[in-house]
Amino acid sequence: MLLEVFREISFSTEESNFVAEKLEKKKLKKGDILFRTYDVVYNQYYVCEGCLRTYFLDNSGKEHTLQFAIKDWWISDYTAFFTTTEAIMTIECIQDAVVYKISRKNMEVLYDQVPQLETFFRKKMEKGFAAFQKRIISNLSQSAKERYTSFIRTYPNIEKSVKNYHIASYLGITTESLSRIRKEIAQK
Amino acid sequence: MLLEVFREISFSTEESNFVAEKLEKKKLKKGDILFRTYDVVYNQYYVCEGCLRTYFLDNSGKEHTLQFAIKDWWISDYTAFFTTTEAIMTIECIQDAVVYKISRKNMEVLYDQVPQLETFFRKKMEKGFAAFQKRIISNLSQSAKERYTSFIRTYPNIEKSVKNYHIASYLGITTESLSRIRKEIAQK
Repeated sequence: MLLEVFREISFSTEESNFVAEKLEKKKLKKGDILFRTYDVVYNQYYVCEGCLRTYFLDNSGKEHTLQFAIKDWWISDYTAFFTTTEAIMTIECIQDAVVYKISRKNMEVLYDQVPQLETFFRKKMEKGFAAFQKRIISNLSQSAKERYTSFIRTYPNIEKSVKNYHIASYLGITTESLSRIRKEIAQK
Repeated sequence: MLLEVFREISFSTEESNFVAEKLEKKKLKKGDILFRTYDVVYNQYYVCEGCLRTYFLDNSGKEHTLQFAIKDWWISDYTAFFTTTEAIMTIECIQDAVVYKISRKNMEVLYDQVPQLETFFRKKMEKGFAAFQKRIISNLSQSAKERYTSFIRTYPNIEKSVKNYHIASYLGITTESLSRIRKEIAQK
C-alpha cells in the first residue's frame, strides 16, 4: 500500500508500518464533499483512482475550479491545510474515487521520524509550486484557446469524466466559449 | 549574515560556517538582469533590500509580471531552477538591491548536511504554494479593482518604487485601467 502512495521511497519494515498507520484509506462516491468553505482543514488527500476537484464559490454563487486531482495527485485547500484554518474552497469527488488521507499533525510526526518523507514532500511542493507559476503565466499571457490546449495536455484523460462547466470554470471562461473553442479545434 | 537569511534557524558554529560558504552576496543596480529567457537557471535569490521582479515576455512582445520580490522574499524561475533547465522568464532588478544567491547544487548539499534547512525550505515552499493557490483563485474570481486592492495589501510599500506598467502587467490589465481604478478608489 505504501508503494502506491510513496512509490519513490524505500522504507524499512518498521518505517513502513509506522507510515502506514498514519494514512487512512477512503472510498468516495461521485458527489461526496470532503470539506466545504469554512470547515477547518485537517487533511490532504492522495488520489489512487477517480477524480476530485477543489473549487471556490464567489459572492455571486459562481464556481471557480482551482484544481483537478486524478491518479497520483495530492489535493487540499493548502492555505487552510498548512495552517489548520478554515477552508476558502470546497473539495468535491466528481468521479467515484479511492483516496488516502493524511492529517497535518501526522505529517509533522512523519517529517520528524522519517526524514525521507520531508524530502519527498519538499520535492512535491517544488513541483506544485513550479506548476502554479506556469499556470499564472498562462492565465496572464495566453488566449482561452491556448489555455484549453494546455489543459488537455496536463490532464489528458480527464475530459470524458468531468462536466463542461468544470473545465470552463477552471479556464475562467463560459461554457459557450468552451464549445466554440472545441468546434474551432475540431474544424482544423 | 546567516541571521539575515535564515532568521528562524539556530545553527551550530560549524553549520553556520558551512552554510555561509554556500551563499554569495551580490549588489545589484536598477536595470540589472540576473537571467533571461533561455538562460539555464542555476540559482535562486534572497532579497535583503531593494526590489526584483520576474516577468514573462509573450510572442507579441508584451511583458507579464509574475512576481515582485522585496525584503525577505526568495525569487527565481522555479520551474527552471528546480530542474536546472532554461528559463521561461527574466529576472530584473527594478530598485537597487542587495541579494544572496544560492545554487541548486549547493541547496542539495545543504539539505543533506543541515536538515533544519530542508524543513525551512519545505515550509517556505508551502507558503509560496498556498499564496499561488490564492492568487489563481483571485485571478479567476475577482474584478481588476479587487485584485489591485489585494496587491497593495500584499506589497504595502511597493507602489512608490515600481512603474505603473509593472503593476498593470502583474494584474493582467492595461495601465489605463490601472489609472481608472486608482481614480475610483481615490474618489471614495
